[in-house]
Amino acid sequence: MRRKTAVALVHHPVLGRDGKILTTTITNLDLHDMARSTSTYGLDALYVVHPFSSQRLLAERIIGHWIDGSGGKRIPDRATALRCVRVVEDIDGALADLSNEEEKRPEIWTTAAVAPGSEPVSFAAARESLAQDGPPVLLVFGTGWGLAPEVHERAAQYLAPIHAREDSGFNHLSVRAACAIALDRLFG
Amino acid sequence: MRRKTAVALVHHPVLGRDGKILTTTITNLDLHDMARSTSTYGLDALYVVHPFSSQRLLAERIIGHWIDGSGGKRIPDRATALRCVRVVEDIDGALADLSNEEEKRPEIWTTAAVAPGSEPVSFAAARESLAQDGPPVLLVFGTGWGLAPEVHERAAQYLAPIHAREDSGFNHLSVRAACAIALDRLFG
Repeated sequence: MRRKTAVALVHHPVLGRDGKILTTTITNLDLHDMARSTSTYGLDALYVVHPFSSQRLLAERIIGHWIDGSGGKRIPDRATALRCVRVVEDIDGALADLSNEEEKRPEIWTTAAVAPGSEPVSFAAARESLAQDGPPVLLVFGTGWGLAPEVHERAAQYLAPIHAREDSGFNHLSVRAACAIALDRLFG
Repeated sequence: MRRKTAVALVHHPVLGRDGKILTTTITNLDLHDMARSTSTYGLDALYVVHPFSSQRLLAERIIGHWIDGSGGKRIPDRATALRCVRVVEDIDGALADLSNEEEKRPEIWTTAAVAPGSEPVSFAAARESLAQDGPPVLLVFGTGWGLAPEVHERAAQYLAPIHAREDSGFNHLSVRAACAIALDRLFG
């Protein structure tokens, strides 16, 4: 019995280059790529988290174009993928939606390119946990230079940073690539 | 001793929605995401393959902006990633560059969302092969609706399509996501 699992793409609070907390803008291709990965690996939803109503409206318009508009007519598969996207104001909005019809409060599992603490959970252990019964899980990815500490502090656990087997000296995957790899490691 | 390995992103010959062979345009974010994945997993190069000089010029300008231009000053890590990109006219151009200083002719390994024949190589076997001595390998990814049959026909082998463990009924990853997952399975 697999745990109900969803992805959240967070635009605030995230870190900037200088380590300060900021809000990023929505990237069109994040929605497409992460919706396609979320749908391919059979997760329940992709939550696009943004505090600004204008940015949420932009996300809704992109999604609408591909579900009900000319984009969906041209590429029906894209409509299928984007139907998993829910636009919410904050992480609590994602948790509330994910906990619908569930008695158990969802857990937040965060991701980071650099471990935000000393005891990350391995992908192998996380994969095993997701295959068993338990509360729903919200897998949280940050835009910009990663999730702010306050998001990690709310997490039940955080996934080990993704690395190559041999250290290349470079470790800067896009959030689209990191999400795809994480879902493949957990559900591939 | 790891085999010299590079990625090729092919814009022609690839398939369109209708199964006919066509040429796709260059997508800015393909270069960024695939260069970052290529660099993170320590591969030797990302070849951007396009038959049109105008499109190759566009790719060179994007790369230049991030290596020598204002983009690279703002985000130095991005310059590091994009230094692995080589823009070539066709797959033979990529093979010629990859075989420099090597006596052995590179092998083409193709990728596909749907297996183009009956005997794909598993990622486990491919991973083991890449960790041993052997000729260089060009891992070829197609844009659009995938590589044309003539590319697969030139390949020494093709990698098994990427699937979720449990079939979700949807299998349409972006080329950026598929490349990231493939590199993680081979070198993660």
